Amino acid sequence: MRNYKFIISYDGTRFYGWERQPGKDMTIQGKLEEVLKKMTGTTDINLIGAGRTDAGVHARAMTANCVLDTNMTESEIQEYMNRYLPDDISVNEVRICADRFHARYNAIGKTYRYTCWYGASKPVFDRKYVTVLEKKPDVDEMQKASEYLIGTHDFKSFCGNTKMKKSTVRCVDNIKIEESGNYIRFYFHGNGFLQNMVRILTGTLLEVGYGNIKADDMKDILEACDRQRSGPTARPEGLCMMKVDY
Amino acid sequence: MRNYKFIISYDGTRFYGWERQPGKDMTIQGKLEEVLKKMTGTTDINLIGAGRTDAGVHARAMTANCVLDTNMTESEIQEYMNRYLPDDISVNEVRICADRFHARYNAIGKTYRYTCWYGASKPVFDRKYVTVLEKKPDVDEMQKASEYLIGTHDFKSFCGNTKMKKSTVRCVDNIKIEESGNYIRFYFHGNGFLQNMVRILTGTLLEVGYGNIKADDMKDILEACDRQRSGPTARPEGLCMMKVDY
Repeated sequence: MRNYKFIISYDGTRFYGWERQPGKDMTIQGKLEEVLKKMTGTTDINLIGAGRTDAGVHARAMTANCVLDTNMTESEIQEYMNRYLPDDISVNEVRICADRFHARYNAIGKTYRYTCWYGASKPVFDRKYVTVLEKKPDVDEMQKASEYLIGTHDFKSFCGNTKMKKSTVRCVDNIKIEESGNYIRFYFHGNGFLQNMVRILTGTLLEVGYGNIKADDMKDILEACDRQRSGPTARPEGLCMMKVDY
Repeated sequence: MRNYKFIISYDGTRFYGWERQPGKDMTIQGKLEEVLKKMTGTTDINLIGAGRTDAGVHARAMTANCVLDTNMTESEIQEYMNRYLPDDISVNEVRICADRFHARYNAIGKTYRYTCWYGASKPVFDRKYVTVLEKKPDVDEMQKASEYLIGTHDFKSFCGNTKMKKSTVRCVDNIKIEESGNYIRFYFHGNGFLQNMVRILTGTLLEVGYGNIKADDMKDILEACDRQRSGPTARPEGLCMMKVDY
């Protein structure tokens, strides 16, 4: 019995998110556990992911761990998993790790990217990985608004679960907004993110970009600790989990 | 009545190729003509493409032309078309052009790219635009073999239509093979390409890369003017029409 660490990419389009759910066949965790059960011949498989991505959200490097009873080498495990997983889930790395390693509890930072696109043509080749905007938002205003979000705050205004009982305090230490051609990419780095938080942050910044919310109002929105005050939850397809720090 | 030039991108995955075909709803030309008919309120629409891509082949900049009777501006036409076309076809440019402009007859050069991928993981995000190889081919040998193909030759050995009655002489003036990470990209430039020609050239070069054909045998294969001598037709999904020169 050894503990294994996995780095996983997936196109979330077809899935109900990361988390295994009774009665829902199409979840990332479910698909991965199914293959691990087949591989080890046991039903006792519990794959722990660093986070739970929403339905339709993608990942370039989700980290997960699982205790397995197998004689296969790391590369044999990777090969087996990639052979039996669907085309939209890839295992990029398999490594034996410390017994005490826990992909969720040991995560100290995460990077998410949210990709938007605008223009007179259409993003044919990455249409499943971008959110198409009707018009170009003001990036300088969004950048200005994002500065109020940096630091350790109660992000209750940006939490999709309004009945959240646990602490809604998180530290966001970097938000970068990059323009490149017809793309606008938001990068968020922090010690952790609440349910839908990156999508609500993006949705609120876009409202600033369109002039519907003033950049300076971001401080009040944050302090209100009220989901009613922030902007809409941006669509899932633009979001991608990029990296987990340990 | 004016002649319009169009630059079009498409993800060919869902389509039976460019060319309109009776009884087949899913062709690129068919979808475009359908929208132009709706837009102009006539059934007399004949969209001329620079070339006919095969089923499953993509394009970043297919060029086409069509005579239209409309009062709409170029950008109104583009907006209308992009609104009614499916997500996997985009009109990137619409311009009034000379009456005598003919997208097929006036084309003097074309660039195609063929993208391959190999590795222990899987290309999740561009899986529809690459051909996955079982192992890495020898790029130096493929480059060496490709040099025999440069120039004006009878490419009958590389023509998918073995009953072709017209000339099978074409000029290929550049073949470049680029490695980048786990990707190998073949670029082909020439004055025109026969049916399946880029895919058969790629399939034959890959056989060289795997050591099943010697690089120096390429000369004989070309001179044989016999489809039996060349390699298999590489899969369509790795192929993309990149540019048409006028």
